[in-house]
Amino acid sequence: MRAGPSQEDVRRHNLGTLLRFVHLRGPASRATLAESLGLNRSTIMALTADLTAAGLVREELPRGPGRRAGRPSLVVRPESTRVYVLAFEVGVDRLVIARVGLGGVVLDRREASRTRGSDPAEIVGTLAAGARSLVRKSERDAVCVGAALGFPGTVRRADDAIRFGPNLDIGDLPLGDALSRRLGLGLPVSVCNDANLGALAEHARGAGVGCDNLIYLHGDVGVGGGIIAHGRLLGGDEGYGGEIGHMVVNPGGRPCACGSRGCLEAEVGERTLLAHADRAEAHGQSGRDAVRAVVDAADRGDIVAREALHRVGTWLGFGVANLVNVLNPGLVVFGGTLRDIYLGAAAQIRSVLATGALAAPREKVRLRTAALGDDTTLVGAAEFAFAEVLADPIQVLARLRAPEDSSVH
Amino acid sequence: MRAGPSQEDVRRHNLGTLLRFVHLRGPASRATLAESLGLNRSTIMALTADLTAAGLVREELPRGPGRRAGRPSLVVRPESTRVYVLAFEVGVDRLVIARVGLGGVVLDRREASRTRGSDPAEIVGTLAAGARSLVRKSERDAVCVGAALGFPGTVRRADDAIRFGPNLDIGDLPLGDALSRRLGLGLPVSVCNDANLGALAEHARGAGVGCDNLIYLHGDVGVGGGIIAHGRLLGGDEGYGGEIGHMVVNPGGRPCACGSRGCLEAEVGERTLLAHADRAEAHGQSGRDAVRAVVDAADRGDIVAREALHRVGTWLGFGVANLVNVLNPGLVVFGGTLRDIYLGAAAQIRSVLATGALAAPREKVRLRTAALGDDTTLVGAAEFAFAEVLADPIQVLARLRAPEDSSVH
Repeated sequence: MRAGPSQEDVRRHNLGTLLRFVHLRGPASRATLAESLGLNRSTIMALTADLTAAGLVREELPRGPGRRAGRPSLVVRPESTRVYVLAFEVGVDRLVIARVGLGGVVLDRREASRTRGSDPAEIVGTLAAGARSLVRKSERDAVCVGAALGFPGTVRRADDAIRFGPNLDIGDLPLGDALSRRLGLGLPVSVCNDANLGALAEHARGAGVGCDNLIYLHGDVGVGGGIIAHGRLLGGDEGYGGEIGHMVVNPGGRPCACGSRGCLEAEVGERTLLAHADRAEAHGQSGRDAVRAVVDAADRGDIVAREALHRVGTWLGFGVANLVNVLNPGLVVFGGTLRDIYLGAAAQIRSVLATGALAAPREKVRLRTAALGDDTTLVGAAEFAFAEVLADPIQVLARLRAPEDSSVH
Repeated sequence: MRAGPSQEDVRRHNLGTLLRFVHLRGPASRATLAESLGLNRSTIMALTADLTAAGLVREELPRGPGRRAGRPSLVVRPESTRVYVLAFEVGVDRLVIARVGLGGVVLDRREASRTRGSDPAEIVGTLAAGARSLVRKSERDAVCVGAALGFPGTVRRADDAIRFGPNLDIGDLPLGDALSRRLGLGLPVSVCNDANLGALAEHARGAGVGCDNLIYLHGDVGVGGGIIAHGRLLGGDEGYGGEIGHMVVNPGGRPCACGSRGCLEAEVGERTLLAHADRAEAHGQSGRDAVRAVVDAADRGDIVAREALHRVGTWLGFGVANLVNVLNPGLVVFGGTLRDIYLGAAAQIRSVLATGALAAPREKVRLRTAALGDDTTLVGAAEFAFAEVLADPIQVLARLRAPEDSSVH
């Protein structure tokens, strides 16, 4: 129970709010900012001056056909090429590294394929080499203000330790620390669950903009989830919140990698769909393309594929119904392979939802596919990495530009 | 996206924070307040002076053996008898009305038994009559600052409409409006789901003090729930959050009052336990005492009762495991009949939890019985009713003491 903020806290909050506004919604005139943030024009001017001096935004004449006659109103624009973060994704089949500028612009990216089960040290090496080459190519006065990595496992908030990653044999490796050392930028690398980042991303820039209570479900080899409640990622007591893939929907059902049976992951994951469709991995088919092939076959009337989608859709429907009852979300977003499964089994999912969820929380919930496609994790990692500079813009930049941190080019 | 608070907002926030501190933790010296709230002594003095002038707190010499030699430090104490709320509980078998003073002191209460299925108008009449008699007995200068009612149903946040109350035939009655009119105090009566209030109560004054991520499960004829995430009641998009009783734990299982099958409520509710134990309501046994009788019989070695508890405990374990995976709570609290069932089936619940939940979110979760016993809903209603005055103490009191509100005695 803490007291209210000081004057200095208020200024910091206002600077962060203005910067967040142009970061998420794009360039805006002072008039728009004043109205949207509920501050007067002179306060906006002072805040913009501070952010400009720090090199976080610039003011310029509006571009394009929006210009009107008379004295044009200046537009506040984020310094996308000068202020950036590094976003990393460790996927089951790929590694992605991106340099993302303030405003959410992907400035540059590297992608490497990865064989399942590869060595953690090798992963760190690939990510660090990719990132260093991106940094070398950045502008001379550009500043990296954060770094974050999305990982398909259970991550403890206190120390970013990976507690459970059945689909990657990563052990107890402190992935963030190892990557941070190899990068040599003097910046920590935060590690987050990939589906939690997906929820952040869809909330900030995807299907969930404007919806402060949403659930993101991500399918891959495993099934992950992220919950936004009251506009905030629901982390729970230690940051493990959102392990929706291990909600038991079918007690005594199919065995799960976690040791339990009938988990959502075991009933709707990639392997299960392929097994139901007689397209097991033994036949050389796995991953996203194999899932799409089943959905396409069902579309063409293939009975086995349709039955497989129906079974998987039923359990996905039970999972969604439970989440609707427990959390009353305004929106459920399906990403990864669950995007394809949702598109192929929407009628069955909605049918189970109609009987399995109470009318009150069900009537207004929307079901949607992820708007950010395969980049949900990466976009979420970038947003996570920007969090610190958005919370305290001047302080973070001052620290990074200080002489002792000259390694941060 | 709003800008930071003004000076006036900060003062209001600080007044509320100080008042909330003595409301929840009891009388405190200025030194304790300064340290706990992170404010200097002169600010604490000014805030205390404002709250004293408004009649919300008083300063006095410390009581009892805590006094030491030298100049005694004054203690700030909430004005419990002068500032109060009305808390109402509509239970399945009883109606309770209480006058609760600032600081959480139950000053006075009335209780009436109620036959299941009684007329909504009759309920409102009984509650209003009880409340008026409590108000008449209050001190001459006492002020009622809020009123709230706990109800075993699904309540829409926007207008307090009751959307689903299968165990009470209340229809679409705007219970809060009706009660507010009958009271004639010029105060609205908020209506909340009873188990949501239970979660608030256990978090504020019960088993969950200090734990900002907890789940409260309440058993009665139905099973309800309330979720506290990041210290706040998780309402979801429309206030229906926490309908844990309708999470399907056993697909195709026992029919539920909601129309679905295998809901937690259907598998662990009072009627199911009694049916499993061959003590169905037809034999004249129902309610809390009947549940206790089963637990007692199991304790004495009754095989049928033990088997009944084992079955119910299994499904309760699945429900808790799912919640632990999805929400990573630090604490799960069992209230109402689930308190007794938990005490009788703890080993089975923990056994299912051990296999059904991931190790990471499971290892630190604590399972506890409700500390507030049968008063969780009532205490929660009082806390809910106090929320407004704690958010803006001076403003609320000024409004209530204004001449045109003379009906508020």
